Order: sequence, then C-alpha cells, then structure tokens
Amino acid sequence: MSVTLNCDMGESFGLYRLGDDAGLMPLINVANVACGFHASDPDHMRSTVRLAKENGVKVGAHPSLPDLQGFGRREMKMSREEIANSVIYQVGALMGFLKAENMPLNHIKPHGSLYGMAARQEEIAHGICDAAEIFGVPLFGMTNTLHEKIYQQRGITFIPEFYADLEYAPGGTLIVTREHDAKDPDLMAERCVRALKENKGTANDGSFFPVTCETICVHSDTPNAIDIAKTVREAIAPWH
Amino acid sequence: MSVTLNCDMGESFGLYRLGDDAGLMPLINVANVACGFHASDPDHMRSTVRLAKENGVKVGAHPSLPDLQGFGRREMKMSREEIANSVIYQVGALMGFLKAENMPLNHIKPHGSLYGMAARQEEIAHGICDAAEIFGVPLFGMTNTLHEKIYQQRGITFIPEFYADLEYAPGGTLIVTREHDAKDPDLMAERCVRALKENKGTANDGSFFPVTCETICVHSDTPNAIDIAKTVREAIAPWH
Amino acid sequence: MSVTLNCDMGESFGLYRLGDDAGLMPLINVANVACGFHASDPDHMRSTVRLAKENGVKVGAHPSLPDLQGFGRREMKMSREEIANSVIYQVGALMGFLKAENMPLNHIKPHGSLYGMAARQEEIAHGICDAAEIFGVPLFGMTNTLHEKIYQQRGITFIPEFYADLEYAPGGTLIVTREHDAKDPDLMAERCVRALKENKGTANDGSFFPVTCETICVHSDTPNAIDIAKTVREAIAPWH
Amino acid sequence: MSVTLNCDMGESFGLYRLGDDAGLMPLINVANVACGFHASDPDHMRSTVRLAKENGVKVGAHPSLPDLQGFGRREMKMSREEIANSVIYQVGALMGFLKAENMPLNHIKPHGSLYGMAARQEEIAHGICDAAEIFGVPLFGMTNTLHEKIYQQRGITFIPEFYADLEYAPGGTLIVTREHDAKDPDLMAERCVRALKENKGTANDGSFFPVTCETICVHSDTPNAIDIAKTVREAIAPWH
Repeated sequence: MSVTLNCDMGESFGLYRLGDDAGLMPLINVANVACGFHASDPDHMRSTVRLAKENGVKVGAHPSLPDLQGFGRREMKMSREEIANSVIYQVGALMGFLKAENMPLNHIKPHGSLYGMAARQEEIAHGICDAAEIFGVPLFGMTNTLHEKIYQQRGITFIPEFYADLEYAPGGTLIVTREHDAKDPDLMAERCVRALKENKGTANDGSFFPVTCETICVHSDTPNAIDIAKTVREAIAPWH
Repeated sequence: MSVTLNCDMGESFGLYRLGDDAGLMPLINVANVACGFHASDPDHMRSTVRLAKENGVKVGAHPSLPDLQGFGRREMKMSREEIANSVIYQVGALMGFLKAENMPLNHIKPHGSLYGMAARQEEIAHGICDAAEIFGVPLFGMTNTLHEKIYQQRGITFIPEFYADLEYAPGGTLIVTREHDAKDPDLMAERCVRALKENKGTANDGSFFPVTCETICVHSDTPNAIDIAKTVREAIAPWH
Repeated sequence: MSVTLNCDMGESFGLYRLGDDAGLMPLINVANVACGFHASDPDHMRSTVRLAKENGVKVGAHPSLPDLQGFGRREMKMSREEIANSVIYQVGALMGFLKAENMPLNHIKPHGSLYGMAARQEEIAHGICDAAEIFGVPLFGMTNTLHEKIYQQRGITFIPEFYADLEYAPGGTLIVTREHDAKDPDLMAERCVRALKENKGTANDGSFFPVTCETICVHSDTPNAIDIAKTVREAIAPWH
Repeated sequence: MSVTLNCDMGESFGLYRLGDDAGLMPLINVANVACGFHASDPDHMRSTVRLAKENGVKVGAHPSLPDLQGFGRREMKMSREEIANSVIYQVGALMGFLKAENMPLNHIKPHGSLYGMAARQEEIAHGICDAAEIFGVPLFGMTNTLHEKIYQQRGITFIPEFYADLEYAPGGTLIVTREHDAKDPDLMAERCVRALKENKGTANDGSFFPVTCETICVHSDTPNAIDIAKTVREAIAPWH
C-alpha cells in the first residue's frame, strides 16, 4: 500500500492570499481543493486545479459549511438534506473546473466543522454519503469515528488519514482550532512514522491511541506548512 | 423544426419564494435553472431539477453575475476570465444535481445583465463561450446580437429565442427591467406567432424588426407567467 | 402599564418579498426591523424605517446570526465577541437609517436562533448585552430564560414578550420552526389575554406555565399575520 | 493649514489578513476604515477602531460597492438610491463601533470603484452626498472631478486628497488597479511635496497637472506601504 500526502489547497479568496500553494503543490500527491463556501472563488479554483495538473497532483473536493467569514470553522445546525445539497453543489462546481482541465475527481474530503460534525453526528455523516454516492468517489476521514463507521456502512470507500500538523487529545480526538499554529516538523514527522509503522497516534499528553492511516494531511494555512510537508514527505518515503 | 417553450426557473432562495414553478413546469419544454448567483441555493436547485424530471422537462443552466441582492440585473465590470470561471462554477454546480437525477445538461442560457452584456460586449460573449465549450452544449441567445455572431464564430450551437413577456425597443433591443410587469397574454401570443410565421419581432411602438426564433421564453417571475405560458403554448402549437 | 404589539418587519430582500409590512404597520406599536444578516438589505431597511415613521411606530433593531440562506434560523457556534460585534454592526447600520429619518432607536430584539441561543447560553446572552450596553436601549426577550436573568444582571432593561403566533412546549419553551404556519386568530388572542390577565402561558398540550408580558409579538412571515394582529390588538385593548 | 496622512485600513476579513495595520497606524493621522462590503467584518472593524483610538488616529468610513470577491474594485451599475442606502448602511455600522469606543465619525471616503464612479457620474456623486448629509461629515475626494464639483454644490465640506502610492495619467486621471504595486518611496514623497508646494501633480509620463491637496493617501494593501508612509510623512513634515 502506498501512503500519500494530501493538502487542503486553493484557500485564497479575491485579493486575499492564504497558503503557499505554488510551494506546496510539488511536495504533495493529492490536493483537497476549496469550493467557495469557506474559501476560494471561481478564479482561484481554476488556477488551483491547473496548478495541480501541472504538478501531477490528484484533485479532490474540499466542501464546507457555507461560512466564508468563519472559514467553515464554526458549526452550523443543518439538516441531512441541506448538507447533502451543499456538498453536491460544491463538488459539482469543482467538477466544472476538472472538466475544463480534463481531470477526474479523486475523492471528497469535507472541510473544518463539516468534517468534525460528520465524525460525531450520524445525520451529517449520512448527508455527506448522500452526496459522495452521486459522484462515486472515496471519502477521506478519521479512523475510529463515524467517518469510518457510516461511510463503510454505506459502501463508500473510506480513506483514513492522519494529521501531520494538528494536535490530538488523549484518545485520539482531533483538536481543531480556528487558526493553525506552526509545528515542529521533526516531531510531527516522527508522529507520522509512528502512525504508519505502529498504527499509533500520539496525543498532546504523549499518550498513544490506535490509528489506521492511508494518507497524511498537511494544511496549507499552517504557517510552516512547507517545512512540515518536506520533512514528513522524506520521513514517510518508505511507505510512499 | 420544433419550437420549444423555455422558462427561467428555480429562482426561490432560502425562505423566499419567487415564481410558481410547480404551475409552470407542466407547460414548458425547457427549464433554465438558476445556479445560486442571482437566485436559488443548493436546496432549491435540487428540488427544481427533480420537478423538471417529473415533468419531462429538459434542464439548462442559467448562470448569472454574482449579485444576489440585485438578482443579477445590475451590470458588473468583469474580465473575460472572471466571466468564464463564474459560468464554469455555476454550470458545474448544476451538473452535480443533474448527475444526482441522471439527467443531461441541455444548454446554457446566461441570466439578466450577463445575458445583456454578452449581447453587446465581445469579451463577455467570449467568456461565456470559453465556459460553454467545456460543457459542449448549445447557448440560448438573441438573434442580431453578439450572441449570434460570437457564439457561431466559436463553433457553438446558437439557439435563437424570442421573449413572450418582455418589450423590445424599435430595432429589436430587448428592454430589461429589474422587476417584470404582467403582460396581456393574447397580445404576447400574437407577437410570438408573428415571430414564428413572419420572422418579425414587434417593438413597443408597433414597428417590426427581423427575428429568428427556435425557442420562446417566459420568465417565472413575471406576475402572470402561467397565463402567458398557457396562451403562448396554445398559439405556437403548430410549430411545436 | 401599557402593553404593546411588536412585529418583526422589513424581511424582504432584493426582489424577494416577505410579509405584508404595509398592511401590518398600522396595526402595531413597535417594529423589530431586520438588519441585513437574516433578511433585508439597505434599500428595504430604508423603506421599512420610513413606513414605520409614517405610521407612528417605534423602531427597534432585529439583529441575527449571519445566515441569509437559513433566515437566521440555523444555530451557529460563535464566540461572545463575535456575537457582540455582529450585533453592534447590525444595530449601527439600522441607526444610520434612523438618523436619516430623525428617529431614536427604541430597543434591540435578537432574531431567530440568536434569540433562542441567548435564552439558553450565558455567553451568547452576555454578547448581546455587550452590544446593547453601547446603545443604551432595552432588550426584548422571554421571561424565565437567560434573557431575563442575564439582561437584568447586567443592568439592562428587560421587556418580557409573549408570542401570539408560535406554540410553546409544556413548561414554556418556545417552539421555533424554520417556516411559520397560520394560526387560529381567536385561539391565539385568547392565549394572549390569559397571559396578560392571569400571567399564564398556554402550552401546546393545553397546560399552563407562568409568564410576564409587557409586549406581544406577531411575525410578519406568519401566513395570516394580519388577521392575528387585528384580533389580538382588539383583544388586548384593555391593557393597551 | 495642516496636511494629514490618511490610509485605507481594516481590510482584513475572517482569517485573511491584508495590510500591516499595526505598523501603519502610528504613522498616520486619519484612518479610512473598511465597512464590510469590500473588506472587513464586524470583528476586524472593532479591532481597527480600537487600534486607531490607541494611536490617536481619527476614523472615517470607507464604504464600498457590495463586492467582497472583487474587493470593491469592479464597477456595478447601481441607482442613486441604492448607492445612498448602501453608504448609509456601512457608515451606520461603523458608527456602532465608534460609539463603542466613544469616538466621533471624522469623514466619509468612498472606496475603489465607488470612488472612481463618483468622480465621473453625477448620480453616484449625489448618492454619496445623500448619505454624507445625514451624518454631517466631510467627504474626501479628488480635485478637478465631480467629487469637488458636486460635493461643494451640495454644501458638503470637500477635502481634496493626493495619492502617494498610485500613478496618475497625463491630465490627472487616477490609475486604479485591482492589485497595488510597490512604489519608490523617495519618488512618491517628491511628488507629494510638489503637490503641496507647487500645487502640481505628476503624471506617469512626467507631465504635470494642477492639484489641491489637504490630505495625502497611502493604501494599506500597497506592498511597501509602511516605507512609503514613513518617507512621505517626513517629507511633508513642514506642512503637517
């Protein structure tokens, strides 16, 4: 099995720039491209898909709750149908740009609070599946959460991922912050290797929790994302 | 040649309702479905596509300038690239819902000011072609404008349409208003028949101008849209 | 003490119309005017404030969570500071239109989920107080909730209200729905009179709960809002 | 007469950062604070007003066309009433935050395309005056344009400004670009001094045009805004 490096990309908006996509794209295998609800706009989506193509990077959709100001990191109470329709809209929009570049859709990975809510609320996880089913692509998510349970129940390919630039609480709950801090690349690479070699995640108190991991994620809005991506990429080379 | 009746549909938004889509859908052949930039949202797009399917109505995309408050009826200065990318985004989003219902995309018809700008500005017409080429579908538009000239130049199928519920100025310029008024159904039907039989449009001063017409348009937000659609539908039956 | 009739007003947006404001305004004493986050826009705010002035109706601000598509009726996780700043922004915007008409701000009444969240979450109630303090006006809210407790603790005048067009669960919890149904005007007027005469609210199972009430609310988006307002207005005349 | 340095500030949005406001604020006298339509949000408005207060900087409103994606730099066709109401809304919103900090509103300076349109279109200039009259504050603008003519005709104090970081075409037309380039601080300071000492603006071909100037503007989104502000500030000290 080959382990990939995935990255949330294309999160600029209008004149606003976020993340060094040009620097990161050569380092990764799979890009989760923002679809305009938490970040990005049609122009940035176009250029991000093109940048991915130039670098031989596969493109997945990174749909979000509809909250540009909150960057999709504020929970919103939405029904299963609203979630499904919002995801269909965003993934469809991205497919327009993929069609323009003659590229396939690789996967769907919900963003921010939508990702977090799907890990804990059945209806949200089902709403995401309702959309993913239509596009017939795998879903990225976290092992030992409703991502794994519901996606597999629904017969959708589940790709477990491990975060190279976020902390986990003891037991394995991901700690999601509104803004991301820089992290020590060596420490984070060590944790990724442990996840791959021993199937152990490392919590912020040093304790371990069980993980499965087929892809490793770095966020483009983490301040030292490029350093982390480089270090992790080298460290995971044996599994790559 | 069979002449169709097309209608701008799915222009509700959130709790707001606009147009009697359920009443109109059985009367038309082709629906131009709003894509969220001047009207609609993912939930209304889903239900509009379903309603079209139930009524055997073909679905085209009705993309707009990004201006929900102005209902896409305020001109905005955008570059060719911005126009192309905005249209790709919206058409792609609609294709997500078409995929969900296993329906093909029938055509693209720009909405409101985007439609008007494309009739007069080459760069805008080209921006729309840049998007339409990707999806490989015809464009609806007005004869004797840049719609016809540029779309055909670019090798895109051009479907000329005649408006059953709008006034034309002498010479054939369409008069686009922010809100639509009710119109006399019989008078409007008479004008449609004249357009089909004699290739003559009727201006608001009673003068005529040359037209070609393969489809006739009614707007769902015209107050008596259903009456107009019914009367026009009967009147054009010989060409239908 | 004089009991007033208050109504959520100005909830149209762009071309979309919601509520018969022209019909309702002559029937009420106090208008809670939407501020653009769940409904309305600068043009509708202007005309709503003018309509209120023409009818001698006092104007309060009706700020919301930032969610136009959800009409402010989907909960969002926001911090106390975000809530305070969002409310300051909206109330300030309304004060621009009040200044244009030389009218004072009468009160603040949060809308939809913001209202509901403030009834149950201390941080949200405090965020609203943080804003209300700046403007020095009373807050409308529900008795026996954090509205009453926190607003009074903070030294802000609390005006308890009773809903003439919504159902209450046993114990007095307000049942908030995304869209409002028509209600029997006589039944609702009877409940208002009971609230004023006996300080008893009526739940949807016929049981009673204690209420205090200085103002009675009708929503402009309730289908038969005008009938309810007329009937309730007559019924509460003795307290008016 | 004392010449001030003014700067467009508070143009961050959500997680997106634009401009080094903390670095610029100590260098300027007057801040034009974004109001949420081209940039900013309630949280950034709050912190920008506070930062201005801490630095003894006066605050004016910087209202825009409603176009966050285009940063208010794409022209939109709006009526005089729509312009007036949009400006009232934004200025009112800012006044909420000024009230919170107990600061007065110093002036209004329209942003981007709204500024440019007001220089050339009478109806737009009047729409801005309709709003400014309500708040009773001066308007910043360009000499020899409709800014000067209409604002003065309407009896509103007109404060002419000269741009330290933009190019002018021969004859004095300001060249407005979607994104700003870095400029040579010494060259730009020299032009400012020429404007103040000789009432001569310098065009991009080296020719001169007549100017009056009571305040000099630097944009916070110009890449080397701080260097320009420092150099200009020193150079104009004799007039300061």
